[in-house]
Amino acid sequence: MSEKEKQDKPDKREYKLRLEDAGMRLSRLQRQCKDAGIPILITFDGLDAAGKGLQINRLIQTLDPRGFDVFTGDRDGEEERMHPFLWQFWTKTPANGRIVIFDTSWYRRVQMDRFDKKTKKQEMETAYRDILSFERQLTDGGTALVKLFLKISEKEQKKRFEALTASEETSWRVTKEDWKRNEQYGKYWKINEEMLARTDVGYAPWTIIDSGDKNRAALQILTTVAEAMEHALRKKQEGRPEELFDKPVPPDRYRRGILSKADLTLSYTKEEYTKKLSRLQKRLELLHSELYKQRIPVILGFEGWDAAGKGGAIKRLTSHLDPRGYQVCPTASPNDIEKAHHYMWRFWNHFPKDGHIAIFDRTWYGRVMVERIEGFCSEADWRRAYQEINDMEAHLHSNGAVILKFWIHIDKREQERRFNDRMKNPEKQWKITDEDWRNRAKWDEYEGAVNEMLERTSTKYAPWIVIEGNSKYYARVKVLETVVNALEQKIKETEKAKKKNE
Amino acid sequence: MSEKEKQDKPDKREYKLRLEDAGMRLSRLQRQCKDAGIPILITFDGLDAAGKGLQINRLIQTLDPRGFDVFTGDRDGEEERMHPFLWQFWTKTPANGRIVIFDTSWYRRVQMDRFDKKTKKQEMETAYRDILSFERQLTDGGTALVKLFLKISEKEQKKRFEALTASEETSWRVTKEDWKRNEQYGKYWKINEEMLARTDVGYAPWTIIDSGDKNRAALQILTTVAEAMEHALRKKQEGRPEELFDKPVPPDRYRRGILSKADLTLSYTKEEYTKKLSRLQKRLELLHSELYKQRIPVILGFEGWDAAGKGGAIKRLTSHLDPRGYQVCPTASPNDIEKAHHYMWRFWNHFPKDGHIAIFDRTWYGRVMVERIEGFCSEADWRRAYQEINDMEAHLHSNGAVILKFWIHIDKREQERRFNDRMKNPEKQWKITDEDWRNRAKWDEYEGAVNEMLERTSTKYAPWIVIEGNSKYYARVKVLETVVNALEQKIKETEKAKKKNE
Repeated sequence: MSEKEKQDKPDKREYKLRLEDAGMRLSRLQRQCKDAGIPILITFDGLDAAGKGLQINRLIQTLDPRGFDVFTGDRDGEEERMHPFLWQFWTKTPANGRIVIFDTSWYRRVQMDRFDKKTKKQEMETAYRDILSFERQLTDGGTALVKLFLKISEKEQKKRFEALTASEETSWRVTKEDWKRNEQYGKYWKINEEMLARTDVGYAPWTIIDSGDKNRAALQILTTVAEAMEHALRKKQEGRPEELFDKPVPPDRYRRGILSKADLTLSYTKEEYTKKLSRLQKRLELLHSELYKQRIPVILGFEGWDAAGKGGAIKRLTSHLDPRGYQVCPTASPNDIEKAHHYMWRFWNHFPKDGHIAIFDRTWYGRVMVERIEGFCSEADWRRAYQEINDMEAHLHSNGAVILKFWIHIDKREQERRFNDRMKNPEKQWKITDEDWRNRAKWDEYEGAVNEMLERTSTKYAPWIVIEGNSKYYARVKVLETVVNALEQKIKETEKAKKKNE
Repeated sequence: MSEKEKQDKPDKREYKLRLEDAGMRLSRLQRQCKDAGIPILITFDGLDAAGKGLQINRLIQTLDPRGFDVFTGDRDGEEERMHPFLWQFWTKTPANGRIVIFDTSWYRRVQMDRFDKKTKKQEMETAYRDILSFERQLTDGGTALVKLFLKISEKEQKKRFEALTASEETSWRVTKEDWKRNEQYGKYWKINEEMLARTDVGYAPWTIIDSGDKNRAALQILTTVAEAMEHALRKKQEGRPEELFDKPVPPDRYRRGILSKADLTLSYTKEEYTKKLSRLQKRLELLHSELYKQRIPVILGFEGWDAAGKGGAIKRLTSHLDPRGYQVCPTASPNDIEKAHHYMWRFWNHFPKDGHIAIFDRTWYGRVMVERIEGFCSEADWRRAYQEINDMEAHLHSNGAVILKFWIHIDKREQERRFNDRMKNPEKQWKITDEDWRNRAKWDEYEGAVNEMLERTSTKYAPWIVIEGNSKYYARVKVLETVVNALEQKIKETEKAKKKNE
């Protein structure tokens, strides 16, 4: 044993005791957070060979394995490459009371991938916007987010690489890219520094861990996580402060809005309908095949009054499509597992792969309609949702998606007629429930909410289309026409962009 | 319009009406099966260009989209290639009341993959065994399984290929492999014939659909599915017949079995323990890296008496492992979604990728222990489970997995001592519940069930290892030693096999 090692010895023992204490504290806090239903998300990013794997293992040794999952975000597999970059992280966010640990997080996008030129320059700003919005949504939703950055010096890194390379059993772990990042340590560090500075925000601060000494780093990590848990528990106990808004909701402002302008007399004869429908369906079939080849994802959302004809419109839309390339995603009341996650989580699970179509029969807009009106979420929740939804759709759009949202509109009289029809027809009775009648009674309230929604969330990249639905024929054709036109335009743009790049 | 087309016309109209009727019938049956909680699995296999996509789309147009999912099994992605071939199908089996449709099923393995030589000759028998066992497990578990085979003639197939190739927009759909299977239609058909003959079993019969005429085929498919649903509903209403067994369970036969032979005096001093443990952990760390490189999946199951020390043993096993390469999967009582699936489904969701280790803290053996003794399943269920489990482990083994199952054994007195210790220690009180005391009261019953389990399910490819656990030190070392030895042997075998192939 060298002199130096001897000197370190007492320290090591001291660390061991302190680490044991910190471990017991964490183990206790994990049980408390589980009981309180707090979701906890811990990310490990940093420099290569800073010991992320080792430190994660030390952290999880203190935890009850029934309560956490570890995921790696360090490379994109086939599924990941076919989705927007936040998809793999959104779908893995923790349920209430659970802990998720990421070995390399979404920050890879503005860090390693930037250095390796996998993220293009013009994508950087969008990436930062998406990351900050993602973290904001999670923390607003009650997730305790702990962001750890493991740092080592250039010299230490080189030493570790050399040690790994020296042994036959570990040399494969050090890649050419790793060495390159070490050789250009200064340049790479600048990228990291910018990232840390731009994303060190109040609701999701960074903790930088000096990982030169493994024990000291471990202790700092356990302590940081414990403190974050304690903070989350305190916040939970205090209860959410009732957020205040500048002015009370003007209940009438949206009463007469976009919907009142729809011309519900528009209609087609059966003959017009059959001819147009058949032509459009055949056209869509070919476009479907084309967008599959061009890897364009398509998201179609359907909302509308009960009995407005969403199902019928979706049926005509899909009847000529190849079932391998589309999915209808019905949105019913959330199940237990969905309830235990962030509101947006269930939709992230259904966003389409590149080249596929996802059709949502009712959507994430439930937040600002039924959840708002029935009081299933707080006022702060639904008020925040407009921005959250716009951000989410912007992220999907940045990934190249076509996004269209349909509001199928009928008037009150037409709805009553259809309800009565359904009641009389034994094959259709199951389609109508007491809830439908209850919703009908709140027509005016809903109309206000819908108008506000249409105004606040219709964007250039994800427009709302109001479909005049008193005539089912007219509605179905207009839906198909809109989809066909949007896809044709997108395919044209994609081809043009491709030619430009050639 | 040609003479021939004119003649067909009345038929077409007639088909349209009959298809509409069949669609309404299916739609009604879907609701009934949903209410009855019957899972339905429909597979579409057959010859290329027989129109699987079109027919699936016609089928789903009649269904409520809230109740089904369509999956394709026609190619293996990255995830699929890193798992046993039944994994992608097992994990997608329907929940109670839901319908799953596969466009190309597990039969690809003994059909197209065989023709394309992706399935090797020596793998064929294993594949048939695994397929039949899979279908048997599903149908025994109450799934209605509908297997459809779409057939067209050589000439018709050629005609369809030519039509697709003629149009620029569809020509990419016909591959070189498709043409080859058409050119060697006779040879390929023989493979299909053998497959149909070998797997046309009472519990999962084939229906062959002549797909030359699209409308006739559609009608036959809707009718076949409807009849299968009606059959399943009838069976459900009748209730399961109480299966009779040759002889009553001999309650004492397994009372004194394998467990009574364990020498619980075996122990290590702290010094022996520390030395052995540290050496084994370091060795395991290197082996972990080696099995990652060789892509060997490892499945370790832990069972044992309450307070036997499963958690402690797992902790020592994992403390030096890279968290990216292993996962601890705790088995608690099933959640709602797990309850709505086949008993084995939840475990299939956690079987490791090639090169990874999955450690199960309690396992699928709950079926023949707690579920048997507490009456959570029928006698028929747990009796069938021994064979089901052996089959499942054989399938995992065929895929190259190392499978070890540990029973950590302590005696009744030692358990009492540990329970009392836990009660006294405020940091450990949460570990002990009323249920633990209740289980303890049934010690003898459990001992009989465990002995029977050890005898019936210890196989060469997935052995049980009884760990003498009164000394925690001894138990932890023996677990590590067993794992290290098994991995060393497997890696040696793999290297030998590789050299032989070079």
